[in-house]
Amino acid sequence: MELYFAPLACSLATRIALYEAGAEAEFTRVDTKTKRVADGSDFLAVNAMGQVPVLRTDDGALLTENPAVLQYVADRYPQSGLAPQGGFERYGLQQWLNFITSELHKVVFIPLLDAKAPEGAKAFAREKAGPRLAYLNDYLDGKDYLLDGFTVADAYLVTVLNWAKPSGIELAEFPAIDAYVRRQHQRPSVAKAFAEELDLYKAEQARRAPPILSRRPA
Amino acid sequence: MELYFAPLACSLATRIALYEAGAEAEFTRVDTKTKRVADGSDFLAVNAMGQVPVLRTDDGALLTENPAVLQYVADRYPQSGLAPQGGFERYGLQQWLNFITSELHKVVFIPLLDAKAPEGAKAFAREKAGPRLAYLNDYLDGKDYLLDGFTVADAYLVTVLNWAKPSGIELAEFPAIDAYVRRQHQRPSVAKAFAEELDLYKAEQARRAPPILSRRPA
Repeated sequence: MELYFAPLACSLATRIALYEAGAEAEFTRVDTKTKRVADGSDFLAVNAMGQVPVLRTDDGALLTENPAVLQYVADRYPQSGLAPQGGFERYGLQQWLNFITSELHKVVFIPLLDAKAPEGAKAFAREKAGPRLAYLNDYLDGKDYLLDGFTVADAYLVTVLNWAKPSGIELAEFPAIDAYVRRQHQRPSVAKAFAEELDLYKAEQARRAPPILSRRPA
Repeated sequence: MELYFAPLACSLATRIALYEAGAEAEFTRVDTKTKRVADGSDFLAVNAMGQVPVLRTDDGALLTENPAVLQYVADRYPQSGLAPQGGFERYGLQQWLNFITSELHKVVFIPLLDAKAPEGAKAFAREKAGPRLAYLNDYLDGKDYLLDGFTVADAYLVTVLNWAKPSGIELAEFPAIDAYVRRQHQRPSVAKAFAEELDLYKAEQARRAPPILSRRPA
């Protein structure tokens, strides 16, 4: 398998899943601003939406959209336990994947992370953030994971919540979420994936001006 | 099964799926503004997010989030062909469900349909709409459905695209999408579901002031 990724973008969730599964995979870096692959080729020829993740399977098929890619990896390595293999719990997984992709990733974080988003878009996202994080906090209270054990939904959630600080969202206001994030970061696959991509991200920033993190609130 | 729905909301996709499957189902109306179920009970006790659809299974379990609910219905009635039952095509279905839920439903339509959304949020959504609809238009060119036959992804897509006009988006600018929508509306399950919910929606509007459609551009 080959994963097209950008450092600390939502493709990090798939990296975590691949590490959890012990999968052999090639990681191909994409600059999502210039839409160039690391070898200089045109990323839009791989995904016309210009987004990561894209997964190229061993058969050469291309798959996009995080919840689809994550479920593919989980099912390709069923012994990993990264997704319930059937039963009602599988729909529970899909429910959480969709909450993360729609309510958190797209509604809250996309406008807050985009330096060019109008203030009205950011205000709208901030207004949505509170009830969504409160809902998640209530759910996570007393739980170690979204489902019974670590799944691709946790990989996606911890990836998305990493954007809270640069979005001006203080997770300490949501103690169950805050504790959940700290626990997940102690997990070897999560720690390794974040450490590697943070290094890549910092190197990328050093090459760019103005740095992306200039949008981090003071 | 019991479907909690609001007229012309995204729960309409599940109604279409239930009609396609010939499923026995109870349809329970929700006022998503007052968060009351038709019998006056508190909808937030059913779904703390206050959103439709919610599906109550025959076992009494509750499921939320459209792509999860739609896949549950499709798998409960596999003979309906509403979802590929395995193989890589299943991930293709999930890819399209996620594109619709994240890029169209949440990024484009939520800000444009919300009368209280700041102008900056609407401008941000309008800026995102063009590339996403162009991508979809390119994909649909020469195709009858998103996959090989009618699936729950088509049920969801036709439901979401119904919001284009009140969002100020002119689908005629995207000929393949426009033709796709017209074709889908000729499908008996789609026509029946839309006709029924349009009647309910109009009756709801007549009871309310100011009417929701006042946000429809002149």
